[in-house]
Amino acid sequence: MNRDEMLNAIRTRMPEKRYVHTLGVMDTAIRLASVYDEVEKDAEIAAILHDVVKYADRDWMKQTIIDQQMDPNLLLFHHELWHAPVGAYVAQYEFGVTNQNVLNAIRYHTTGRAHMGTLEKIIFCADMIEPNRQFPGVDELRQHDEQGLDALTKLCVKRSIQYLVQKNQPVYPDSIHCYNDLVTRKENE
Amino acid sequence: MNRDEMLNAIRTRMPEKRYVHTLGVMDTAIRLASVYDEVEKDAEIAAILHDVVKYADRDWMKQTIIDQQMDPNLLLFHHELWHAPVGAYVAQYEFGVTNQNVLNAIRYHTTGRAHMGTLEKIIFCADMIEPNRQFPGVDELRQHDEQGLDALTKLCVKRSIQYLVQKNQPVYPDSIHCYNDLVTRKENE
Repeated sequence: MNRDEMLNAIRTRMPEKRYVHTLGVMDTAIRLASVYDEVEKDAEIAAILHDVVKYADRDWMKQTIIDQQMDPNLLLFHHELWHAPVGAYVAQYEFGVTNQNVLNAIRYHTTGRAHMGTLEKIIFCADMIEPNRQFPGVDELRQHDEQGLDALTKLCVKRSIQYLVQKNQPVYPDSIHCYNDLVTRKENE
Repeated sequence: MNRDEMLNAIRTRMPEKRYVHTLGVMDTAIRLASVYDEVEKDAEIAAILHDVVKYADRDWMKQTIIDQQMDPNLLLFHHELWHAPVGAYVAQYEFGVTNQNVLNAIRYHTTGRAHMGTLEKIIFCADMIEPNRQFPGVDELRQHDEQGLDALTKLCVKRSIQYLVQKNQPVYPDSIHCYNDLVTRKENE
C-alpha cells in the first residue's frame, strides 16, 4: 500500500479536521525523521496510522483491549487513551505493518513511556506540535524541535502532565515513567 | 513514651527549624484529626515521628531500604523520599509504634499513595499546610482544609506534582497513583 492508498484508507474513518491533523503529523514526523536520522518512510506510515481508530466504536475498542490481552488498566482510564494501542493492533492486522518501531510509535503516541525509541518520540512530539495544533504554549514547544529530540519530548510530556493535572484528569502511569526517564537522563548528563 | 519524651527524643536529631516544623505538623494534624474523626493521639504520634530520620545518614538509610526489603525503586529516586519509609521503620523498631495506621501515615507522608486512610491523608496534608510552611499557593491550600479531607489531599498532591514537574524533578509513581485515585473518585461522585 503506497502513501496515497494508505491516506485514502484512513480518510473515511475520521472527520476532515482529524484528517488534516494527520497530514500535519505526517509532514512534521517526516521532517523530524530527517533531522534525527530516523527512516522517513517509517515515520510516514506511523503518522498516517496513528489515529486510525480514533473514531472507532468504543465498545469494539474495549473488547479488542480485552481480547488482545492489552494492559487491563487501560479500561480504568479515559477511553481517549484506547485508540493508541488499538490503533497499533489495526496497523498490524489490517494494514500489515510488521515493523515493531512503527507499531510502538502508534501504540505509545498518546502517553509516551520510559525508554522510547527515536520513532516513538518523533510521533509523540509530531502529534503535539504539528502546524494545525493550537493551544497555549505550543509555539514554545515548536521552538524546541531542533534542540534535541529528548529535550522536545521532555517538554511535550511535561506539558501533557501539567495540562491533565490542571484539569483534574487522570495521568496514565506510562506518562510519568516517560517523564521520569527523561528528567533523570538529563540529570545524569 | 509520652508526648514530651517523644519530642525530646526527636529534637536532637534535627535542626531547630525542622523541629519547629514538626510542632506545626503536630498541631495541624491534631486539629485535622478532630475535624475528620481520627484518633488525635495517633495523629500526634505520627506527626512527631514523621521526619525522625530526615537528617539521618544517607548511606545508612540506603542500607536500611535494602536490608528491610523496601521498594528498591526508592533508590532510583531522590534520597529526599527515603526518610518516609525509613522513618516508619524507626518508629516501629526504635519507638515501639505498632499501630499500622500511624506507621503508614509516616511511610507515605512524602509521596501519598492510592487509597490512603484518614490518618495518612491528615499527615500528608498537615506536612504541607502547617503554619510555618511558606510557598506560593499555601494559603489556598489552607483555605481548603475544612472542605473535606479528600479535596484537601487532592489539592496537596496536585501541588506536589506540579511543583516537581515545573522543576524537572522525578515524580514517584505513588504520587500519581494517589492523584489518580482522588480525581477518579471525584468523577464518580
